[in-house]
Amino acid sequence: MNVEIITIGDELLIGQVIDTNSAWMAQELNKFGFYVYQRTAVGDSAAHIVKAINEAIKRVDIVLITGGLGPTKDDITKHTLCKYFKSKLVVNKVVLNDIKKMFKDRHRVVSPVNLKQAEVPDNCICIRNKNGTAPGMWFHHKNKIIVSMPGVPYEMKGMMTDGVLPRLKKTFITPHIVHSTILTQGIGESTLAEMIEKWEDALPPNMKLAYLPAPGMVRLRLTAIDHDKKIKGLAASQIKKLKPLISKYIYGEGDDNLPELIATLLVKKKKTLSLAESCTGGYISHLITSMPGCSAFYLGSVISYDNFIKERFLDVPAGVLKKHGAVSEETVTYMAKNIKKKFKTDYAIATSGVAGPSGGTDEKPVGLVWIGIATPTKVFAKKIQYGTDRMRNIHVFSQTALNMLRLEIESE
Amino acid sequence: MNVEIITIGDELLIGQVIDTNSAWMAQELNKFGFYVYQRTAVGDSAAHIVKAINEAIKRVDIVLITGGLGPTKDDITKHTLCKYFKSKLVVNKVVLNDIKKMFKDRHRVVSPVNLKQAEVPDNCICIRNKNGTAPGMWFHHKNKIIVSMPGVPYEMKGMMTDGVLPRLKKTFITPHIVHSTILTQGIGESTLAEMIEKWEDALPPNMKLAYLPAPGMVRLRLTAIDHDKKIKGLAASQIKKLKPLISKYIYGEGDDNLPELIATLLVKKKKTLSLAESCTGGYISHLITSMPGCSAFYLGSVISYDNFIKERFLDVPAGVLKKHGAVSEETVTYMAKNIKKKFKTDYAIATSGVAGPSGGTDEKPVGLVWIGIATPTKVFAKKIQYGTDRMRNIHVFSQTALNMLRLEIESE
Repeated sequence: MNVEIITIGDELLIGQVIDTNSAWMAQELNKFGFYVYQRTAVGDSAAHIVKAINEAIKRVDIVLITGGLGPTKDDITKHTLCKYFKSKLVVNKVVLNDIKKMFKDRHRVVSPVNLKQAEVPDNCICIRNKNGTAPGMWFHHKNKIIVSMPGVPYEMKGMMTDGVLPRLKKTFITPHIVHSTILTQGIGESTLAEMIEKWEDALPPNMKLAYLPAPGMVRLRLTAIDHDKKIKGLAASQIKKLKPLISKYIYGEGDDNLPELIATLLVKKKKTLSLAESCTGGYISHLITSMPGCSAFYLGSVISYDNFIKERFLDVPAGVLKKHGAVSEETVTYMAKNIKKKFKTDYAIATSGVAGPSGGTDEKPVGLVWIGIATPTKVFAKKIQYGTDRMRNIHVFSQTALNMLRLEIESE
Repeated sequence: MNVEIITIGDELLIGQVIDTNSAWMAQELNKFGFYVYQRTAVGDSAAHIVKAINEAIKRVDIVLITGGLGPTKDDITKHTLCKYFKSKLVVNKVVLNDIKKMFKDRHRVVSPVNLKQAEVPDNCICIRNKNGTAPGMWFHHKNKIIVSMPGVPYEMKGMMTDGVLPRLKKTFITPHIVHSTILTQGIGESTLAEMIEKWEDALPPNMKLAYLPAPGMVRLRLTAIDHDKKIKGLAASQIKKLKPLISKYIYGEGDDNLPELIATLLVKKKKTLSLAESCTGGYISHLITSMPGCSAFYLGSVISYDNFIKERFLDVPAGVLKKHGAVSEETVTYMAKNIKKKFKTDYAIATSGVAGPSGGTDEKPVGLVWIGIATPTKVFAKKIQYGTDRMRNIHVFSQTALNMLRLEIESE
């Protein structure tokens, strides 16, 4: 089943916003056996929106529209669709209650503009929006399906996951698609490709491998498509062959992520964690505290950006800082050991490095990081050298540190 | 002059790659008075590419194509265009020399596949590529201009800047386009819309306002287009009228962001900052340390996720925690005051709240945050109630806290 994604918004055409929605939607659609044939971005103009829909329904079976559903004047998608589908706007009571409840929960007063969001075309199926005021609208038209969703990423994502994808899946018979994802850390894309070249070349035609690199990790996604449901077992046996080839770099599968894997390990062992971050500047702590329930094992951290903090609050001896510098095995070892002791945790991570883009020296270039790990029985440190991009370094340093901790806990 | 950007590549349709090229191209085109009317992404299929071009030249004057110019089998753009424009491939000597020189400079041997890149359609103008082997191709066809460029971002950017944009500017007389963006914090999109309704309704037809919401902020973008260069002054005077209507919510303009505005203020005043983060879990510290050079004013923080850390390392009295709880005016006031004193900084921010999605009570529901600010002369706190999405709350709490600090420093 072919899909076209139409993205509405002047901000996309003047380049003020990078469209990340379409990529996410395409990935989710793929998982259910829907294929994006074309993506089209148009401005906030009724005539242009209508033209785009008319062209899209000639090309595909399903048109997914995002954007232009806000309560303000520049948002014209709803009125345009209402006219296009020859409908009139009526108040949807379920949506109205959703909006009232949302404002009540936030202790805010509902304005008339907000209430207007509950008006929807009388010939559409309403898709509820748990994260905002604009409902989604699902239309049947000339044997095609046209769905309109908000452009705000988390509103669209909630709506796709809870409303649109399940309904699409119920409507169409699609082939079996199996996505198996293996997550690796500590190895580059091209080296990985060389290590698994023979395996990849021998894949049958109904299976395809994709390399999805992100800072500090590479995901390998095997996609298998077939109308025979045996495909699931066949894909699993290919994954079974793949794993031993790169086992030392694999940290998880599917939607696993390092903070969650660590959380599971620590909660199970009833152990706790603290951090002493310098160059990563709070990013590891942010990754951990992004998880609901992290307070079960995470106590907190000291972000010792300045050496004064390292010395005074993490008890790194002044002599060590002077002799070896802040970016050194000695310093991160003290940092890890002392935060663990002070915060009375079982484990600790410490980082100190040169994130860049400047501040490097011949001896300690940009991209160099020392990572220290303290466990109930030992303290050790490792150094890694990456690139020159600051944000990328912060991400890579953090993922590497988390994986070092995971490997250590798992090996115990 | 209207432009359509056609992006070619299967990777865009399965969501493997986020298209950042189009946003950059749109911004650069706008600067020269060219307006992107539509963006279209299609797969690596000759029939689909031809169809997309045929449709685009009905809509716009200029079609800019990226992608599909690599040397491998799946790159079919050049052959497709060659057939479309009824041309034949000929070796372009300038391109051939560019390729040979590039390989010589990199001490690499030129392969026959690389040399083939010098073959171009005989009826196009070649655009040189200083960053890769694939030249750009500029075609005149039915009074329209069609340009094909590589999809690799830095190759495309070099080619746009040095070749395509200067040539477009020579070819067309374009209108003046002025974008003015006002950044607001602490107010929702719909309330903002109500506050400026009269002003917005009175805008002349050559000016248009857009609301661009993001967690914790709304950007207002006024776009003015006219052939008379007076438009710049007229847009400025509209912005001048807008500002007083919402002055208390405005924190910046254009590409400003809160951490950078705070950095500028603190560096200028030679003042320093520390943080005591609980519910924001290191995110404020991450926003600050994402900026190169932040060590000029930022010393570090204590992430006091557990109450033990608040009590023991931020000296929040046990009695206060017991009586008022961690999420309280009293607790964040102690946190802000004490981190400032301990870390010997001039300013401090403290946060304590319920990020969610669970953990709320009737008295302290999910989405409630207390933010404390300590300055050289005072300490104060404010509470805000937001939604139920954990990540969004973390973002909104952080932006709100940063803006509270900025307002305080600016008011001194």
